[in-house]
Amino acid sequence: MTDDDFIDLRSDTVTRPSEAMREAAATAEVGDDVYRDDPTVNELERRAADAVGTEAALYVPSGTMANQIAVRVHTDPGQELLLDRESHLYRWELAGAATLSGVQTRLVDAGARCVPSADRVRSETVTEDLHRPGTGLLALENTHNYRGGTAVPADRIAAAAEAAHESEIPVHLDGARVFNAAVALGVDASDIVAPVDSVAFCLSKGLGAPVGSILAGEAAFIEEARRVRKLFGGGMRQAGIIAAPGLLALESVDRLADDHANAERLAAGLDAIAGVDAPEPDTNIVVDDTEALDIAAADLVAACEDAGVGCVEFDTHTTRFTTHRDVDAADIDAAVDRVAAVVGDL
Amino acid sequence: MTDDDFIDLRSDTVTRPSEAMREAAATAEVGDDVYRDDPTVNELERRAADAVGTEAALYVPSGTMANQIAVRVHTDPGQELLLDRESHLYRWELAGAATLSGVQTRLVDAGARCVPSADRVRSETVTEDLHRPGTGLLALENTHNYRGGTAVPADRIAAAAEAAHESEIPVHLDGARVFNAAVALGVDASDIVAPVDSVAFCLSKGLGAPVGSILAGEAAFIEEARRVRKLFGGGMRQAGIIAAPGLLALESVDRLADDHANAERLAAGLDAIAGVDAPEPDTNIVVDDTEALDIAAADLVAACEDAGVGCVEFDTHTTRFTTHRDVDAADIDAAVDRVAAVVGDL
Amino acid sequence: MTDDDFIDLRSDTVTRPSEAMREAAATAEVGDDVYRDDPTVNELERRAADAVGTEAALYVPSGTMANQIAVRVHTDPGQELLLDRESHLYRWELAGAATLSGVQTRLVDAGARCVPSADRVRSETVTEDLHRPGTGLLALENTHNYRGGTAVPADRIAAAAEAAHESEIPVHLDGARVFNAAVALGVDASDIVAPVDSVAFCLSKGLGAPVGSILAGEAAFIEEARRVRKLFGGGMRQAGIIAAPGLLALESVDRLADDHANAERLAAGLDAIAGVDAPEPDTNIVVDDTEALDIAAADLVAACEDAGVGCVEFDTHTTRFTTHRDVDAADIDAAVDRVAAVVGDL
Amino acid sequence: MTDDDFIDLRSDTVTRPSEAMREAAATAEVGDDVYRDDPTVNELERRAADAVGTEAALYVPSGTMANQIAVRVHTDPGQELLLDRESHLYRWELAGAATLSGVQTRLVDAGARCVPSADRVRSETVTEDLHRPGTGLLALENTHNYRGGTAVPADRIAAAAEAAHESEIPVHLDGARVFNAAVALGVDASDIVAPVDSVAFCLSKGLGAPVGSILAGEAAFIEEARRVRKLFGGGMRQAGIIAAPGLLALESVDRLADDHANAERLAAGLDAIAGVDAPEPDTNIVVDDTEALDIAAADLVAACEDAGVGCVEFDTHTTRFTTHRDVDAADIDAAVDRVAAVVGDL
Repeated sequence: MTDDDFIDLRSDTVTRPSEAMREAAATAEVGDDVYRDDPTVNELERRAADAVGTEAALYVPSGTMANQIAVRVHTDPGQELLLDRESHLYRWELAGAATLSGVQTRLVDAGARCVPSADRVRSETVTEDLHRPGTGLLALENTHNYRGGTAVPADRIAAAAEAAHESEIPVHLDGARVFNAAVALGVDASDIVAPVDSVAFCLSKGLGAPVGSILAGEAAFIEEARRVRKLFGGGMRQAGIIAAPGLLALESVDRLADDHANAERLAAGLDAIAGVDAPEPDTNIVVDDTEALDIAAADLVAACEDAGVGCVEFDTHTTRFTTHRDVDAADIDAAVDRVAAVVGDL
Repeated sequence: MTDDDFIDLRSDTVTRPSEAMREAAATAEVGDDVYRDDPTVNELERRAADAVGTEAALYVPSGTMANQIAVRVHTDPGQELLLDRESHLYRWELAGAATLSGVQTRLVDAGARCVPSADRVRSETVTEDLHRPGTGLLALENTHNYRGGTAVPADRIAAAAEAAHESEIPVHLDGARVFNAAVALGVDASDIVAPVDSVAFCLSKGLGAPVGSILAGEAAFIEEARRVRKLFGGGMRQAGIIAAPGLLALESVDRLADDHANAERLAAGLDAIAGVDAPEPDTNIVVDDTEALDIAAADLVAACEDAGVGCVEFDTHTTRFTTHRDVDAADIDAAVDRVAAVVGDL
Repeated sequence: MTDDDFIDLRSDTVTRPSEAMREAAATAEVGDDVYRDDPTVNELERRAADAVGTEAALYVPSGTMANQIAVRVHTDPGQELLLDRESHLYRWELAGAATLSGVQTRLVDAGARCVPSADRVRSETVTEDLHRPGTGLLALENTHNYRGGTAVPADRIAAAAEAAHESEIPVHLDGARVFNAAVALGVDASDIVAPVDSVAFCLSKGLGAPVGSILAGEAAFIEEARRVRKLFGGGMRQAGIIAAPGLLALESVDRLADDHANAERLAAGLDAIAGVDAPEPDTNIVVDDTEALDIAAADLVAACEDAGVGCVEFDTHTTRFTTHRDVDAADIDAAVDRVAAVVGDL
Repeated sequence: MTDDDFIDLRSDTVTRPSEAMREAAATAEVGDDVYRDDPTVNELERRAADAVGTEAALYVPSGTMANQIAVRVHTDPGQELLLDRESHLYRWELAGAATLSGVQTRLVDAGARCVPSADRVRSETVTEDLHRPGTGLLALENTHNYRGGTAVPADRIAAAAEAAHESEIPVHLDGARVFNAAVALGVDASDIVAPVDSVAFCLSKGLGAPVGSILAGEAAFIEEARRVRKLFGGGMRQAGIIAAPGLLALESVDRLADDHANAERLAAGLDAIAGVDAPEPDTNIVVDDTEALDIAAADLVAACEDAGVGCVEFDTHTTRFTTHRDVDAADIDAAVDRVAAVVGDL
């Protein structure tokens, strides 16, 4: 099999920039963004803020940096960060909240709701006293990656945020794929974002930009965030070269519906394989379970790679497949066939 | 009511030093412990190590410092600390693991077992990779304060520790009341401590010393701990004055049985009050539940204080009473009468 | 030589508590200080605040903890701490400002003035911007230990503090031996402390208490400090046992004049040894220089110890001798004789 | 004046990518660099390592991130970082060493040598003990930005590094403009880098790439650095888009000689203005001093901006002008004329 035959469903981060994006990179007007002289970055930040309905926005190299800046700006060392135990910010960001911001993680198991209920937020909120660290931030995630790309309804976000705000606790939304959520729910991203104090989203996943994420919120928050971006080493120079494709990414929201349709097709195909359980997905993430077949995810991933399908291990018996712009329905059908063959062999 | 009538069951930390302890303080041979010249501290550290069967020990001002030193010595910033979500180290130490050591807390709900099972330890252990923080330490607690003074059997500690050791993860035991556990279980404290890498215990709770705790472990660990004690500001000078009562505290282990008997008497008395639920305690901590009566713990605590009984709020409807050397059976009976009257009034 | 013959001039921290202090420890009224129930600690804190003219004070286990709490309360992570490069807080506190508070040290060489001039403070003050960390705290030291126990005149402290206050930068005074300064300068300690925002001083050096230091400042500052004390593990229980000698220590200020007289006697004696340079001291610290004799301080310290005199290496050719309550003029003369013999032999 | 007339000498970071670089961005072969699938990034890292003679290299978003990753990988919290008090890593990186790595800065005044002498390194190296933080890293800078773009001879770097290595202390070189140093000194960059353990250099200054810096060192060091890059949020996806211009930047080293010639021309021109002192530069950074004219740098910068010349304030009376690819000799002459007019007016 040639490399071209490989169907890469490991992540929507693998998307390659379109020709239009490459052309935009080549022709972007640029300046030194550390001096705020890059007109393309400035325009991207304005339009990104508009896209989620906030006052201001900041362009950063990665979603992890967007989240970690938010934690550092919202909290003081010695406070608690309340979040779901399966959230990206907790699982996959190398303990950044503790080691970059001195903040203790208070985990709740949000289950299929993906965000804690208002009552749970209230009961897990700690008021600072002589003995106890106070809650400094509530962090939510939408879509929820590890729980299967779940599109969390806006009212669920709002309820949790409102409960936090009762105690004057700010709320950050890790919205790496918030536009997937918006498309799936048929709402505007700003409706999801309205109740929270800051949101991070990626230009480089389903939206297809080569590099970069956005942190958005109030203007004063973004001013502080700009300084923390410098501290973390995220200040870039003629960043317009990568901001220009980011502007096109912002215009690509509608096409996420195709990814969701392909994910549904993929889940149906995988679920039809005897012994494989693949629930219908909300968005572009499909999680299959091969426990009934006693096939370990690690083995499935390795065998799929040999068979020309990229996917990633999620847990002992669960494997994640992610659809994106660079795969179409025919690729999905081919991927299902290959996985079926692999499962048959294992 | 005079102050003398007040029956203080808020904590076993309220015990006042005995006359023998005061005499020991007054006559202690001392030196500058920062230069390791205090013979009384040196003797206390030797005997404390013997009491829990470790190579070495270090005298520190508080149990919190003992725990936080252990976290800092055992871990690197950016690692995870695995522990029960109701443990003292997580709930009541002001996010020290995050802000003093840069370590992320991974919480498990150990339930009535009080320590996670070996399987749970294995499944929550994270191997460091590019995306995930590795587990740096497992922390256990015995007796388990917030779960009701539970004396955790030695084999349960051993099973969890063994599971951690399979992945070369060290294990720290917050044994603030480990001698209560030993007495309740009828074993030697060293049997409980044997499987772990370090243990903290308090001289100032049921054992009755005025000030101080012990951190114990291997000699090399204690050498590092001595330096972190200095960093945290725990280096004291003629500490023999308070180490001398600590030596007597170490000889007071047997008397903890009296506290346990009084706690049993107290629980029986409280449980007999209609609508109050007070399970039989393992050690010297009694937790009552007044949810059936719709009496909030905060109200109960306030009313008890007015009625001459000290206790502390644990959760919305649960209240903690702790027995100790300065209360006897008659005090317990009087306390039950007062609480019964208070409950009748509320 | 018996131990009793040993003249210990390593530090004034080696002083042993007096009989009166031991008696005070034995008879102190105590309670649980974490609940603020210890009347002796409460009285010590009141009287310590009075002694330096502040609103409030906090009893802590060590001078290092007092300093490090002050740094943490006054600053935010990512700020700068401006201080003399020979200050205790920088040299001997294990990088606590960086690792406990995330604060960068900006060093000035204050030279024989011991504190930077107002102009120097102004020129080293950094206003926070996108690229530069702002100055969060100015820390001074009086008496200045490493610069030879110098008693820094109050107006020099005031000038530096005023310059910092112009930029709204708080000022902390490490006054571990501030009463030595006051006695030497013939002023009240409160005159030295008046221009600063917080002061740390030790009960356990020349004042002779076995254990403990004081952090003093405004009431709101001390409330925050109390919480950081808990975080650092400095919360103690029946601390009245050691606070009681501390009360007597506070009454011992006048006797520091004896230590100063003995230090002057010692310096004169040492300086009279051919080739040894020992300038006249301000307070109780004598620093000799044996470079002219090409005698390394490490060798001198070792030989002195064999000869029955305790002292400590300060730098390659400088050695510190400290007078205190447990040595008298005869001891000083004997010490000089022994050092002279040692120098003759080396 | 149109924008096109503005001669921007604020920094060499303002250079805009060339047409060839834009073309390279548009046609770069890319992949997901977090999975190490981006062939252009992989090639850039290989060639960057070759350019400085190290085993391995890592592409990061900024020079600040390169430096801060190096500090974090080389040190442990509670150690000291030894460096010149005018170094970029200390002055302009927002106290990152303290707040991201828990490391205390030990400052030396390296003066015109720009790096401390071997003797100074030895005397400032601290061996860890119970009281003192040990030296964890020596950081050097070449060219030295704040000291005037000085090209530090390789043997001076080697001498300092050797002294550090005697105590097994690693050495990091902030070589943001190390190729300017190499060109000015007529040596290969690898000759400068050979004695140190890691080096950071920028692709986006005189070399002209739009975004990015390199951290280089041994393979094992770079593996750890890759993980810290993720922690700090520097993991990028299809980074080949910006790595491709970086490859061309690596081939642009020779052209730095033009910037140096222009800087010499500029310094001569400025120095010829009566009352302005502008020493002959080593590389592309010119620092003028207007103290004799009593013209504040802030005023000069503002007036120059109005007159169409960009420059930056360095200190009260010193101003920095930096030459780069986007200015030629005619621009320099025009800039000198404008500054002369400005100085005449002030």
